[in-house]
Amino acid sequence: MTQAAYYEGERKIRLGAGEPVDPGLGEAQLQVSHCGICGTDLHIFHGAMDARVKMPLVMGHEMSATVQKLGAGVEGFDVGEKVVVMPLAPCNACPACEAGHQHICHNLNFLGIDAPGAFQSYWTVPAYTLHRIPAHLSMEHAALIEPLAVACHDARLANLRPGDRVVVLGGGPIGILVALVARHAGAEVIVSEINPYRVELARVLGFEAVNPGESDLVERVMQRTKGAGADVVFEVSGSQAGADIMTELLRTRGLAVIVAIFAQKPKIDLFRFFWRELRLKGVRVYESQDFSAAIALAAQGALPLDELISDIRPLSALRSGFEDMETAGQVMKILLEI
Amino acid sequence: MTQAAYYEGERKIRLGAGEPVDPGLGEAQLQVSHCGICGTDLHIFHGAMDARVKMPLVMGHEMSATVQKLGAGVEGFDVGEKVVVMPLAPCNACPACEAGHQHICHNLNFLGIDAPGAFQSYWTVPAYTLHRIPAHLSMEHAALIEPLAVACHDARLANLRPGDRVVVLGGGPIGILVALVARHAGAEVIVSEINPYRVELARVLGFEAVNPGESDLVERVMQRTKGAGADVVFEVSGSQAGADIMTELLRTRGLAVIVAIFAQKPKIDLFRFFWRELRLKGVRVYESQDFSAAIALAAQGALPLDELISDIRPLSALRSGFEDMETAGQVMKILLEI
Repeated sequence: MTQAAYYEGERKIRLGAGEPVDPGLGEAQLQVSHCGICGTDLHIFHGAMDARVKMPLVMGHEMSATVQKLGAGVEGFDVGEKVVVMPLAPCNACPACEAGHQHICHNLNFLGIDAPGAFQSYWTVPAYTLHRIPAHLSMEHAALIEPLAVACHDARLANLRPGDRVVVLGGGPIGILVALVARHAGAEVIVSEINPYRVELARVLGFEAVNPGESDLVERVMQRTKGAGADVVFEVSGSQAGADIMTELLRTRGLAVIVAIFAQKPKIDLFRFFWRELRLKGVRVYESQDFSAAIALAAQGALPLDELISDIRPLSALRSGFEDMETAGQVMKILLEI
Repeated sequence: MTQAAYYEGERKIRLGAGEPVDPGLGEAQLQVSHCGICGTDLHIFHGAMDARVKMPLVMGHEMSATVQKLGAGVEGFDVGEKVVVMPLAPCNACPACEAGHQHICHNLNFLGIDAPGAFQSYWTVPAYTLHRIPAHLSMEHAALIEPLAVACHDARLANLRPGDRVVVLGGGPIGILVALVARHAGAEVIVSEINPYRVELARVLGFEAVNPGESDLVERVMQRTKGAGADVVFEVSGSQAGADIMTELLRTRGLAVIVAIFAQKPKIDLFRFFWRELRLKGVRVYESQDFSAAIALAAQGALPLDELISDIRPLSALRSGFEDMETAGQVMKILLEI
């Protein structure tokens, strides 16, 4: 029996029969194994992206699968192979694509948002989105490849070097993955987070974790850096408070990496950018090499991915997953077994 | 007769006898030839920096001079040589200095602000601040080396490449110098400015100049770049309007260079930074290599520096210079002959 979860408007999820699509030229049909629930999915569930999404929408883009069927012209993959999908379909014609930045194509189709996603038994995608994963990598861990690729992209564009002092503002799933990748790259990482559950999880993972509501983060970072400040701050909170403190934390010529989606324009201390010659860089999704890096990290067992999986539930529990994420109390990443 | 202009509090300038200081160990006494009036001097004149400056203060840091007398231990310079001063005295002990960023030392002494400057006949400075200039370079042009070094620094940190599409927001002295240096580096430059006199001057200098109050700057830049956007935007206006438009003007992964001093924290579209993977960099003053580059450009006659000198007046006209700058109507750079 095939099934799918359909988003049909604010807070409306309908579980129904899937509608498998036969793979066309250059496409592959996948049997989805696991799919994580992303903050963006929650955002869609809240109706915040109704102007963009076409309903009914099958969401889901943090997934693992096996190849079920190959369309004409697809080479390099076999039926039964384990894969993950890099869910970006660029136009290949806009100025961003022409400049080689297909991942931030001006007309990007994001699978699971702008086109059907992986909260369904069988998912048909362009074969160029596929990345093979090693046979020994679990399907649960593989479902974390997509968010891990975000973290690999962020760390790569930050040009992290061993010994760099890094602060991650926001200890949700992406923040923690950024912290893990940065530490794996040799950085010394402090995680700033206000949610006690997430503070505790960051500590379990071995990070120095600070609740900036309880102790002075700037003072702590200055202590750790002999008054110099952090080399890199990853802003993953999307808050005015985060935007304020990032400029205080950085050393001269330090780098603020904007990972978060800021729904409001924050006030930014551009004087401080001038005074300290600070730098800032926006980073978004990933490129193919980031997917490869994420797969390699997961396959090596280099990161404690089990600790990030709060729960594994059936597809029918998508709504309960959203509700648990809304409380944001005791949850990191929830996976659905499709 | 020696003379000096003393700042003694908001809008108070006193012209009096100079007080030449005998050069001590590692110092040189200069006979000042010309000194430009900087926007920062005007800011001090307005009383806006009274908490920082020690009164009475001799301002002035955009200057040319000849060496009058050398203190003990000074080698490599001869009395009578033509020089300019890079007016930065770093502490050499703070984290910025330790990281090699002496020009933005945490305890920087800026000569002419934090210590006596060049609005006086004889000026004694640390010899390490001296840069020799070629004999054929006029003292008037040499007085523009300091602001030109700012522009060289800004263009260097922007990593400009031939063919780059550049927008300069703000066509005052620094903005125009940045535009000139960027064009000399091979960039195609549009200057955005609202003051009609400065718009006209930019056009006389051969720039495409746009008054964003009269025509659509974003549309113009998109036309010129086939919809891609600018590679680099120099924000030299220090305004919310400039901060708003810079993110609209940039191509994917384009760079905003913050040259202006933002007195207020502007709202910044960090979503756009994320979405387009934009970059931002604060830039301040100059390093020794920027002074060398500025001297080389001026000595080659590579830039139309005459066009930037609105007037040359005696030191006693400092006040009238400030008053003309306040109207900002028909003035670019005013030099004082000391």
